[in-house]
Amino acid sequence: MANDKKKMVEEITSMEVDFAKWYTDVVKKAELVDYSGVRGCMIMRPYGYAIWENIQKDLDARFKATGHENVAMPLFIPESLLQREKDHVEGFAPEVAWVTMGGSEELTERLCVRPTSETLFCDHYKNIIHSYRDLPKLYNQWCSVVRWEKTTRPFLRTMEFWWQEGHTMHETAEDAIEETERMLNVYADFCEQSLAIPVIKGQKTDKEKFAGAQATYTIEALMHDGKALQSGTSHYFGDGFARAFDITFTDRQNKLQYPHQTSWGMSTRIIGAIIMTHGDDNGLVLPPAIAPIQLVILPIAQHKPGVLEKASELRDRLQSVCRVKMDDSDNSPGWKFAEYEMKGVPLRLEIGPRDIENNQCVLVRRDNREKTVVSLDELEAKIPELLKAVHDGIYNIALERRKRMTHVCDGDFEDMKKMAAEKPGFIKAAWCGDLACEEKLKEEAGVTSRCIPFDGESVSDRCVCCGKKAKATVIWGKAY
Amino acid sequence: MANDKKKMVEEITSMEVDFAKWYTDVVKKAELVDYSGVRGCMIMRPYGYAIWENIQKDLDARFKATGHENVAMPLFIPESLLQREKDHVEGFAPEVAWVTMGGSEELTERLCVRPTSETLFCDHYKNIIHSYRDLPKLYNQWCSVVRWEKTTRPFLRTMEFWWQEGHTMHETAEDAIEETERMLNVYADFCEQSLAIPVIKGQKTDKEKFAGAQATYTIEALMHDGKALQSGTSHYFGDGFARAFDITFTDRQNKLQYPHQTSWGMSTRIIGAIIMTHGDDNGLVLPPAIAPIQLVILPIAQHKPGVLEKASELRDRLQSVCRVKMDDSDNSPGWKFAEYEMKGVPLRLEIGPRDIENNQCVLVRRDNREKTVVSLDELEAKIPELLKAVHDGIYNIALERRKRMTHVCDGDFEDMKKMAAEKPGFIKAAWCGDLACEEKLKEEAGVTSRCIPFDGESVSDRCVCCGKKAKATVIWGKAY
Repeated sequence: MANDKKKMVEEITSMEVDFAKWYTDVVKKAELVDYSGVRGCMIMRPYGYAIWENIQKDLDARFKATGHENVAMPLFIPESLLQREKDHVEGFAPEVAWVTMGGSEELTERLCVRPTSETLFCDHYKNIIHSYRDLPKLYNQWCSVVRWEKTTRPFLRTMEFWWQEGHTMHETAEDAIEETERMLNVYADFCEQSLAIPVIKGQKTDKEKFAGAQATYTIEALMHDGKALQSGTSHYFGDGFARAFDITFTDRQNKLQYPHQTSWGMSTRIIGAIIMTHGDDNGLVLPPAIAPIQLVILPIAQHKPGVLEKASELRDRLQSVCRVKMDDSDNSPGWKFAEYEMKGVPLRLEIGPRDIENNQCVLVRRDNREKTVVSLDELEAKIPELLKAVHDGIYNIALERRKRMTHVCDGDFEDMKKMAAEKPGFIKAAWCGDLACEEKLKEEAGVTSRCIPFDGESVSDRCVCCGKKAKATVIWGKAY
Repeated sequence: MANDKKKMVEEITSMEVDFAKWYTDVVKKAELVDYSGVRGCMIMRPYGYAIWENIQKDLDARFKATGHENVAMPLFIPESLLQREKDHVEGFAPEVAWVTMGGSEELTERLCVRPTSETLFCDHYKNIIHSYRDLPKLYNQWCSVVRWEKTTRPFLRTMEFWWQEGHTMHETAEDAIEETERMLNVYADFCEQSLAIPVIKGQKTDKEKFAGAQATYTIEALMHDGKALQSGTSHYFGDGFARAFDITFTDRQNKLQYPHQTSWGMSTRIIGAIIMTHGDDNGLVLPPAIAPIQLVILPIAQHKPGVLEKASELRDRLQSVCRVKMDDSDNSPGWKFAEYEMKGVPLRLEIGPRDIENNQCVLVRRDNREKTVVSLDELEAKIPELLKAVHDGIYNIALERRKRMTHVCDGDFEDMKKMAAEKPGFIKAAWCGDLACEEKLKEEAGVTSRCIPFDGESVSDRCVCCGKKAKATVIWGKAY
């Protein structure tokens, strides 16, 4: 920051004017990413990567607390291995990058850069699973994967993205399904408790499920502009891959069985969700749990005797309370206010000569700019309280917004088209279960099925598209 | 571990019989890695990956304490970018994997899978460095890289390996050289303080330095079998890349300058060094600082009343003291002793009915099997003390071995050849500085220059190869 001395805080396009441009401005100006010379690949800059590091640390602890272990798998998948499970290869082959040469020699078999690692895990599981005593295997890996996307946007859709992918094997279908649900709950809890993002849990329709899965569960969040963002998914595979890869184990009755499999993932997309759920026209608003800087100390009239000393003393003292930074650069206080607002720092502490005289300082919340005058003796108690207030504040705003932007359509297809065109947000409407209706809704109303929510209240007994008997309530929407 | 019930602890080939086989046995049987279906790529299994996680955590804290920030760069380098710096591309092009297709479409420009990321960092630095106020840039990334190797061995040489790569830019040559030395010291301190591996710091000869570097510094460790292992390197690039990538900044006198650059890396090879420095015929011996399990609690006669309760109570109580595991599987104590010796767990705690009666337990060190009877009231004090004793013990053994296996050759080429053939280890011998002598020593005596040590005592004033005037003392050896 000391290097930014002469930099101006640049204007961010207003959300109302152009939401897409607002997003790109925030991502660039808060220095989260830079575009690289490689088409569709982003560079995560220190501030963006620090957010990802905090996400990793938090999620990883949740995975370990639920008994999972980390491993590292190869980056490459031989073509024959990718082809082993039919549905899976059909889903992924069109969007993978192929390595065809090593040094100057042509490879006899092409290698794809992993788009996801089910096939690699299965190849390994075949070596290490023999008995029910070897189960469950509860593995996870942190890595990047590559999917050959046509159009890309930082965090939301990039050719290379970073994620974790859990891959587990179980004795029974019940155990595997329980795992799928457990991990979906881990994701939902993480989103709500750490990212202050309310999510809807549900199941994907067959059309939208993962290539090769029997069932895909999802958490869906609603962005500021009324579009949905799939924030984490959890898949149940049954024993399909196990059969394709010939993975068997001797069960408790000494019979040979196929194990049941799951996988689940959350990626750097979630940073896009944080930006578009909480951000405003002044820039980022970061949930305290993952903010690289939770409190920034800004000395006021810092040339006056004692101010910098006091500010430094506070910085040292508050290290044990939160992630703290003190900015004593010679930029103006106004510049600094704008800069740290843009960077979404949850709390700002202002301290000047008069504050010092009165043994106090001013704490300002990023979310609503509420100011509190606090005695310097009470900071250790007050800061965690205010960080929690910021978390709760932004969570409630997001929840209120989602309520406001969730609509029910119990009419016919014309009503649905009209609602989809006029009302941004989620639309709850009944569905007969036919692919044809789902496709028609996508093509003519421009909405896709986000999920069949677990808490599926019935909104109508007739399909919103064809009028036939409804099988499920679906949440429809436009999506990132 | 509960799953290993019926598994036998398999025999490990003795070091004396076949060192290479001993290494492979340890790596496989301690479940550090599995071979994958991708030629030359390894799978890091939970126990192996947990070691890497502990290494990462420790090193990352040292990087952050010296002012470095983490970023993430793309996996791919466009061919034209790799070619920008002449020496660099010559060094790396023969050993890279090339992506030539995305989905079903042929790429107009090939992308290589990064073998190292200098070119990507430079491409980014060009965007973000404009003024001396933007300097230094002190970046690091954790990732995997790919080099198309012909023959591979787990950890020591794999096509894909995991590492960190630091890349920094500075105002002056002095600043950059200071950084290169600082990071070499960070590596050396880490090896000695956390891995208990003594290392020699020095400079690489021109022949052995990194492609594109002006100077390469290295830390060299000596393995059990007398072969050297390069454990970390730090490179000074001058402004060569900056010129090739046209990165300039306005200096304090308002003149345009090229910044000065460094890079430095340590990889999963270091796990190979841990194995081959400390391991013995019973398996791994892990330095306490990075051991996934620092203390294993083994209940003796665990079916007797109160034993398992006491063991569980101790496990819970000792969580705050060290990384602890309790094994209450129904394997025999003998099996468990062998298993955790093989896994290199630094301390074993045995507790049985009589111990409980006497309010005591037995602590056994992995390195020398020394047993200590300890009162249960003193565990919090005694365990850290014993972990330190294990660290010091294995460090001193490694240091003694290196002393014993470091030879001085002040004779002629025939003496050198004889010594290289008969005495495994490091050979200190003078060198005239000519590439021809270095190559002759490699071809005819089978040794390469490991480094010109910083503490270069003079061993002779004549080159051990040609007899001409010596320019430096070099450490020669066979190397991994």
